[in-house]
Amino acid sequence: MENMALPLVLLSEQFAKLPGIGMKTAQRLAYFVMSMTEDEARAFADAVIRAHSTVKCCTVCQNLTEGEICPICDDARRDKSTICVVETPKDISAFERTREYKGAYHVLHGLISPIDGIAPGDIRIKELLKRIQTRDIAEVIMATNPTVEGEATAMYISKLLKPLGIKVTRLAFGLPIGGILEYADEVTLFKALENRGEM
Amino acid sequence: MENMALPLVLLSEQFAKLPGIGMKTAQRLAYFVMSMTEDEARAFADAVIRAHSTVKCCTVCQNLTEGEICPICDDARRDKSTICVVETPKDISAFERTREYKGAYHVLHGLISPIDGIAPGDIRIKELLKRIQTRDIAEVIMATNPTVEGEATAMYISKLLKPLGIKVTRLAFGLPIGGILEYADEVTLFKALENRGEM
Repeated sequence: MENMALPLVLLSEQFAKLPGIGMKTAQRLAYFVMSMTEDEARAFADAVIRAHSTVKCCTVCQNLTEGEICPICDDARRDKSTICVVETPKDISAFERTREYKGAYHVLHGLISPIDGIAPGDIRIKELLKRIQTRDIAEVIMATNPTVEGEATAMYISKLLKPLGIKVTRLAFGLPIGGILEYADEVTLFKALENRGEM
Repeated sequence: MENMALPLVLLSEQFAKLPGIGMKTAQRLAYFVMSMTEDEARAFADAVIRAHSTVKCCTVCQNLTEGEICPICDDARRDKSTICVVETPKDISAFERTREYKGAYHVLHGLISPIDGIAPGDIRIKELLKRIQTRDIAEVIMATNPTVEGEATAMYISKLLKPLGIKVTRLAFGLPIGGILEYADEVTLFKALENRGEM
């Protein structure tokens, strides 16, 4: 590092802030930027600024979008009475890839995590409540990750919604398709056994 | 992807151009940029532009630097009569970490590779020759990688320099320290045997 030019050190430090990128990879990326043409480097920097300044949260579902309302909320063919609650916009992409879900979404932008100082007020729960109070909602599917924080957040929201007479469901847990029983952890196997269905 | 806002798709594509970053990681990084504050996003973009516009090649050794001459070439304590020839500026950092080498460097910015259409004229060989003709050089250490291209480039330069009466050396090849003999490939083991020294 002490032999790198200062702007390269600073650029490496910027890359190292990205998730999953260590200092060594960050340096490699910084050197790669130096091998770009000026136009390429400018296009890269512009893409960061443009994405950050033009992409906002959908006023309905909090998904990231360029307009006021995201394409999913704006799509008349989607069933707006079903809301799938996810942690991040990335999770929406995962559900959309299945091409099976035709309802709407709600992005929490985080999970309740007392250990990280994230309280219910820090994620988009009030936006979900407002949406439920102003529109006709038949079902809310809690689709947070099967982690401690994901479970806790699902439980918290479920307890808020049930008194309002709304059907709250949770994603099924069990063996992943293509997985090998021998390698499944105990909790997954227990869930698969507990939730077994008739053939 | 089809559910991502266009600026996010474009940003993902920019990240995916970086070495070792696939489309899935690129999307994750794009989403991470969205979680930055505006100042953070701007600092990131500015670091790219600043590094690219202010860092140039040292006029002596072709290392990347902010000024005309890099700190190593500018350091009076370094032995300028020994030149260690490397492929990339990254390689200089690797040598500097050893804290043992006190000579100068020369960065080729590539290796001769007919298969990729890289001819001797495409890398900084003429700059090395000019440097050797105008200064008093005692030894040139060929420190390119032990790959086909690295070997070919070392051989090519060595053949150019030897008629000029310059001592040309090559890095030693053998077992890496801490490595396990059982896992060494045949060529490395052969080199280790061939270059064995008296104890």
